[in-house]
This record gives sequence, structure tokens and C-alpha cells, in this order.
Amino acid sequence: MKLATLKDHGRDGALALVSRDLSHAVRAGSVAPTLQAALDDWAAIEPDLRRLAADLESGAAEGVVPFDPVECCAPLPRAYQWADGSAYVNHVELVRKARGAELPESFWEDPLMYQGGSDSFLGPADDVPLAGEEWGIDFEAEIAVVTDDVPMGVSVADAARHIKLVMLVNDVSLRGLIPGELAKGFGFFQSKPSSAFSPVAVTPDALGEAWDGAKLHLPLRSSLNGKEFGRPEAGVDMTFDFPTLIAHAAKTRPLAAGTIVGSGTVSNRDADGGPGKPVADGGLGYSCIAEIRMIETIADGAPKTPFLRFGDRVRIEMLDRDGATIFGAIDQTIVKYEGSA
Amino acid sequence: MKLATLKDHGRDGALALVSRDLSHAVRAGSVAPTLQAALDDWAAIEPDLRRLAADLESGAAEGVVPFDPVECCAPLPRAYQWADGSAYVNHVELVRKARGAELPESFWEDPLMYQGGSDSFLGPADDVPLAGEEWGIDFEAEIAVVTDDVPMGVSVADAARHIKLVMLVNDVSLRGLIPGELAKGFGFFQSKPSSAFSPVAVTPDALGEAWDGAKLHLPLRSSLNGKEFGRPEAGVDMTFDFPTLIAHAAKTRPLAAGTIVGSGTVSNRDADGGPGKPVADGGLGYSCIAEIRMIETIADGAPKTPFLRFGDRVRIEMLDRDGATIFGAIDQTIVKYEGSA
Repeated sequence: MKLATLKDHGRDGALALVSRDLSHAVRAGSVAPTLQAALDDWAAIEPDLRRLAADLESGAAEGVVPFDPVECCAPLPRAYQWADGSAYVNHVELVRKARGAELPESFWEDPLMYQGGSDSFLGPADDVPLAGEEWGIDFEAEIAVVTDDVPMGVSVADAARHIKLVMLVNDVSLRGLIPGELAKGFGFFQSKPSSAFSPVAVTPDALGEAWDGAKLHLPLRSSLNGKEFGRPEAGVDMTFDFPTLIAHAAKTRPLAAGTIVGSGTVSNRDADGGPGKPVADGGLGYSCIAEIRMIETIADGAPKTPFLRFGDRVRIEMLDRDGATIFGAIDQTIVKYEGSA
Repeated sequence: MKLATLKDHGRDGALALVSRDLSHAVRAGSVAPTLQAALDDWAAIEPDLRRLAADLESGAAEGVVPFDPVECCAPLPRAYQWADGSAYVNHVELVRKARGAELPESFWEDPLMYQGGSDSFLGPADDVPLAGEEWGIDFEAEIAVVTDDVPMGVSVADAARHIKLVMLVNDVSLRGLIPGELAKGFGFFQSKPSSAFSPVAVTPDALGEAWDGAKLHLPLRSSLNGKEFGRPEAGVDMTFDFPTLIAHAAKTRPLAAGTIVGSGTVSNRDADGGPGKPVADGGLGYSCIAEIRMIETIADGAPKTPFLRFGDRVRIEMLDRDGATIFGAIDQTIVKYEGSA
């Protein structure tokens, strides 16, 4: 089952079911007005959503319209929690190196996770408005899951069954603001502006064998201005799987339905154990600019790929083994914010 | 105008107006079902709420019931954003000293702020369930404001008019988990379980002269097991006022209506510039246990006040100049969590 939220007069948009091939959609307002409302009572509402999804596939549904990702908000346009892990420790090691910081050994055993802002997400085709290029604008391609209610202290084994949806994320990051914020110790705030999510969120069963209950085993594809930037395998080098991240988040408090838990930037080592080569050099590339800049620094003493400029376009997508898009594409242009100063 | 959220079948409770003296309440469902719904459209809804509040004071309202804080959720039982500052730098200096960490000079000019979990708040009289005393359970008494929609890049001057409500917070903290989390650089997560809020949230005009548009000038009273623990002046030693905190939060992204911005632990220096004496020694005391432990360490080489134990009771309240409670009391007992392990 694939779900989207269509832009509508309300802040939370209108829940819609989307056909498996993303060609058509039907509003699901008769079942639940919004995705949050569906998640608030998932066990009761899911069967009705599945019936409508089956009708959409069979052609029996009424009010079917062509599906256009441009008309989508994030599946949850605003959420009560966005807890972003950093499960691909290879990424953490690289960006730390880029900042001249060491990676503590404990990072391989104790998940890194930050509380992200969740009140103002961007849709998959929305522009990314930011006031200054000098902040070092970067994208981060990630996988995220959405949970129902998770009890405090949940075990890793039990956490898996709380995963109700899977989607993609562009965790926009301002590299120039990160070192100062991390040095203060209170985590990211200004350095993490609004994140964007894929057009659809997908139930785990719709992912077939690519989903093993804990990780998603497919390449995550990123491109920059139409040029392939990365296609690392999301199921490889993920040091902490999603149930582990959920259990970490729920150690001292419950997680409310609609909690989004992110994987962090998907990042693979090379087959030889090295930090991963650019696509241009036959590697799997990267899911953010910070990584390639570190590789360039290691190779040439200085980074040469610039951070994002106004007008740059980032695309993040995942294809199934047949080459069909699963979540639709996050496809965003960075633009200059001209509002309040 | 004073607003509360009564426990009800839904996750977001039922919006109610509360009389100025907190004796009576009337459900406001005819105006807005929930506080979030009211904040989503505050300019349009506020006049109707004020009419109902006037009817409540005059005795003209129908369906008036006695007001009982025990029946309250947090004014926002779940919120889209909880951005907690640390505006009383005196507090930061003391807890850093307690950890053996230095205070960078920049902390006096650049606000500290962390993104808090906002999906599962506690009501003012709810127990605080936690699995282990060994985590170093502490309370933190704070002031918080609730905003309407704040544009990205808002100026400090413009930020003030986005403050719609004021309330009190118990920002429960797990001192034993903080050093490890801050060392990782990603901020608080497990060390900040669910926060609790006062029974009512109050519009700034209802605070009279105590509210100057940026700070609240009254003592914040905390007690532990019925014994006064602190009564520092919330308007004193607040290095960063609320408009400054809001502008900081909104530097790189908009803040959605219903954003809660916290002051951090209210903390005063002594008149002589020292770090503040305990109530028992004639001082204004503290808004958390970590501070008195640091004072004890400075005086005697070791802390003697223990962190909270199961069964301990924390009360946080603010009285007006006539001794009447403004927000009602946060009055919570720490209990052992017996759920999932």
C-alpha cells in the first residue's frame, strides 16, 4: 500500500492512496482525513485503507485521478517527532574527518541520534528556500520509517513490528553552521532547516523482499543537476538497523504514533574497505556533498565540489529491481529566501 | 485569558477556558476542539475565545464546571515543536562546572537551544514514570511561550508579537545520561524524557505588568516533597529574552503555529554576584537539583542532595503579587516504570 498527502486547504493536506506504479491516486478522506489521523488509529483504519487500495488497483475505486508528485506535501506535512539517526557510521567517520574531528570507538556500538524539527516539512517537489549560500547548503539522502505508538523501553525485537511505513528523506543540512552548533553540545538546530520527504510512504509489505523487517536492501539514488551523484546500497554498512534505532529513541520515553525515525545519510565503504569512490571513478558515490569533499580532500588536499548554490537541483529516488520508482522522487531546487530578514 | 486542555477520549484532549482564579472552566469545543486547532487559526479564533472567557468571568457561560488540574493534559498534549533554550546562563555555568566542563565565552552572546521531543508530554499532575533512579532524575522549572506561525528569519523586534501564550514547564532531565549524550555532539535525546506543563496556558495580557513583552517578572517557585526548593526571579539573569530565543529558532526555517519555546532552567545569581544560595541559607534557591549539588560541591567538596527517587514529589508554580496562582501548579510524583523492558 502506498500513501501520499495531497496539498489541500488544511495544514495537514488530504490523505490519498496511490497506485503501485504511482500513476493514479484516490482521496482517502472517507477512511481518514489525514495520514496522522490514520496513524493515530492504525490498527482500526488500515483494513479500510487496504480495501480502497485494492479497489484502486482493480479499477473499482471512484474518483481516481492521475498522480502528480508536484501536488504532494510530505506524507506527514508536520509531525510530532522526527528522530534522525546516523546509522551509516561510515558517513559519520567521513564528515568528522572533514571537520578534523576523531570518531570515538563507541560510535560503532551506541547509535547517534538527534531530535529534528518536525513542524514544517517540505514536499517532494517544493523548493528549498534558504537565505544564504555561505551556510554551506548540502543535501542528505536517507531512508525513514514511521511508527505507531511505541512503548517506553521497547526491546529491539519488539520494535520491528511498530514500523508501519517507509519513505525517503532529504535531510537538508547547513555544513557551515554545524561545527559551531555541535561544539555547543546541544545538537543541531539552525544547521538543520526543514527536511523534505518522498511523494509516497509505503507499507513494508509493498517493498517485497527488499525489506527484511529491519533494513531496506536497494540502492538509494541521488543526482545533482541531472548528473548521478550516488547509488549506495541502503542495506549495506547500516551499522544500526531501524528496530535498533527505534529502541534507542524509546529508551526513556514512549514514541507517539506518527514518529518518524531516520537512518541518517546512506553511505557505503568500497569493496576494498576504503571510504567509497565517486561515481565518476566507478564507485557507488555519495548521498551528500560533504562526503565527496572529504574524499577530494584526502586525494588532493582540498575539496573541489562546491556546496549547493541557488538554482541547483537535487533528486533522490529508489528504484525496484525492475527499475520502477518505489517512493517517487524527491526533486528540489535550492532557491534564495527573500522573506523576513 | 487562560486556556487548559481537559483529558478526553482523543489524544489532543478538549480545549477549555479557565476562570482567572482557576476555580471554574468551560469547554470551548464550540469555538475550537483543541488548543492546536485554535493556534492554527489564532487570529480568527481568538475573538470568540475571548467572548467565551468574558462569559465565564461574568457568569453568563453555560456548562461551567469546577476546574481541577488533575483532569488536565498539558495545554498541548503533543506539539509539533518544543525548542528549549537555556537563557539563564548562570544555570549553564553551574551545571557545566558540576560536570567539570568550561563555559565558552560565546555562551553569553549566542543562545543555547536544543530540539526537544514533543510527541508525548505529561499533564501537570501526571506521574513521571521512569525505569531507573540510577539515571539521575532531576526536574527543571522553566517558563515557556507558545507562538503562532513565525516566518523564517524573523527579527527579534518582530518575534515578540508571535508570542500568544505563556506557561510553566517541568523539563525532566536524566543527569546521568547527559554527559554521554553531549559528548556525542548530537544533543539531548534519552536524557530528556517527556516534559510536563502547567494546567493552564495564559495570554500575555492576562499577566499584567509582570509581562514586559519579552520576559516574565515574577518568582518561579519550586518545592520538593513539600519543602521550598527555589524561588528565583524569572525576569532576572535571563540573558536571552523570549523574542531573542524565537528569532534564534527561526533563523533558517519557519516555526509552525503551536511551537513551544522554553526559557531553560530559571536561575539567579546572588546579589553579591555569587552563584546563588540555597533557600535554607536565606538565598533564592534553585529550579533543579543539579544546581544545589554544584553549590554543595563548591562548599563541601561533594554533593549531598540526592537526585529524585521514586515517590518524590516536585511542585512548580508561579504566584502573582497578590499570592494567587497564575498557571496552576505542576505537581508530579516520580514513579517506577514497569512497562516493556
